[in-house]
Amino acid sequence: MRVVCLGSGNVASHMAAAFKAKGAELLQVWSRSLENAQALAGKLGALATNDLGEVDLTADLYLIAVKDDAIANVAEHLRGLNALVLHTSGATSIDVLKKQGLKQYGVLYPLQTFSKSKALDFSKVPLCLEADSPETLIHLQEIAGSLSPLVYNLSSDDRKIVHVAAVFACNFTNHLYQLGQEILQHHHLDFELLKPLILETAEKVQVASPFDVQTGPAVRNDEQTMENHLDLLKDRPDLEEIYKTLSKSIKKTYL
Amino acid sequence: MRVVCLGSGNVASHMAAAFKAKGAELLQVWSRSLENAQALAGKLGALATNDLGEVDLTADLYLIAVKDDAIANVAEHLRGLNALVLHTSGATSIDVLKKQGLKQYGVLYPLQTFSKSKALDFSKVPLCLEADSPETLIHLQEIAGSLSPLVYNLSSDDRKIVHVAAVFACNFTNHLYQLGQEILQHHHLDFELLKPLILETAEKVQVASPFDVQTGPAVRNDEQTMENHLDLLKDRPDLEEIYKTLSKSIKKTYL
Repeated sequence: MRVVCLGSGNVASHMAAAFKAKGAELLQVWSRSLENAQALAGKLGALATNDLGEVDLTADLYLIAVKDDAIANVAEHLRGLNALVLHTSGATSIDVLKKQGLKQYGVLYPLQTFSKSKALDFSKVPLCLEADSPETLIHLQEIAGSLSPLVYNLSSDDRKIVHVAAVFACNFTNHLYQLGQEILQHHHLDFELLKPLILETAEKVQVASPFDVQTGPAVRNDEQTMENHLDLLKDRPDLEEIYKTLSKSIKKTYL
Repeated sequence: MRVVCLGSGNVASHMAAAFKAKGAELLQVWSRSLENAQALAGKLGALATNDLGEVDLTADLYLIAVKDDAIANVAEHLRGLNALVLHTSGATSIDVLKKQGLKQYGVLYPLQTFSKSKALDFSKVPLCLEADSPETLIHLQEIAGSLSPLVYNLSSDDRKIVHVAAVFACNFTNHLYQLGQEILQHHHLDFELLKPLILETAEKVQVASPFDVQTGPAVRNDEQTMENHLDLLKDRPDLEEIYKTLSKSIKKTYL
């Protein structure tokens, strides 16, 4: 399969590499930044361009992995193509591709957090699919199934819901790790201390419901400990606000 | 080593089991609830009591793993003892034991989240130690080192800071998992979808700084996606508040 990758960010890099690992031929990487296009193309043995007018139109698959608000602009340059055109966004409807008179199009949304600095086992990435027709969906299922066994069919509306839930479970969670590290570092304490706790918390909900395994002062309504904690945070009103907001939500859930 | 366990909750259960696994003899479990004391004592081959006046005073080690505000009351019943008396609280000063005229006392705080429903590899639990004297600390380090290789010396003040950081990195995080699940379930979507994402987020910060691997709309300042998300949450003002509070904090950190 001959693939053109439009985009060069975290998602584009990991997905293009996954396609290449499964034997696809990466023809070309387009990015607004020629430097970024060249960096990714170099790793994939592909050509690089920053000119949408020069995108190779002979590929079998076009992977659009750019910022949500740039998808429409990139898709316009693929107008009328006969190949399969996919976007990879959790938050964007399939309709953004509908208008371009494409013959086969769809969504391949990888429900994972990608960072360039961290390699990833793609066989553990859930892939959420949507397609213009049952025929395209079958084609897309074959392609997705070669990348990961975790394949789900999701409508655009459901995909948006999953995307919001993922912001809570991943983006906000990582930020809480960062705040934990910040609190420790401010007192010259080592983030190593927290790492087993972070991992165990995530591992626990693989086998148990998060509702059932909630721990901490808020779920016990231990007012004295919560007051002591807020006292320790009194120089950081931003952390106090987060502490109060989340403790209130935990108490509302359990009490 | 002959151990008496005072408490029968999550921490008491896991720690007493860890002592037993390392060859300690569990003499007795005390709990305010005789039923709970009997349940844990049964697993440990120990006797059970709910009467503090009947606590066996011939042990080598007393493990106080009760609610923070109950530690003082339990410790009073051990007044003047010659054995090693430990509490296991992250949020409580060592001073609560100082007043009881004990000969050896200290803190053995396991920095981990324990749930009765989930078994745990105790060799991955960081143990934070504090003792009344350098001699007791050496004794305590030997005991703790037999349970886990992850042993840290922490003052009462530092332990409180670590405890606050742990609330952010674990208790709040688990609650965000639960809210993610709630959002999915409300739309009849499966929590299985989020599990690989949750695990990868926690695994990533084992090898990278959470600051460096933050993803999501807030760190990209993708206002349109955040507005769309808030629109999807408009029937849940509590979730809207959490979304806004954490997004604001991420933006403040990066922008």
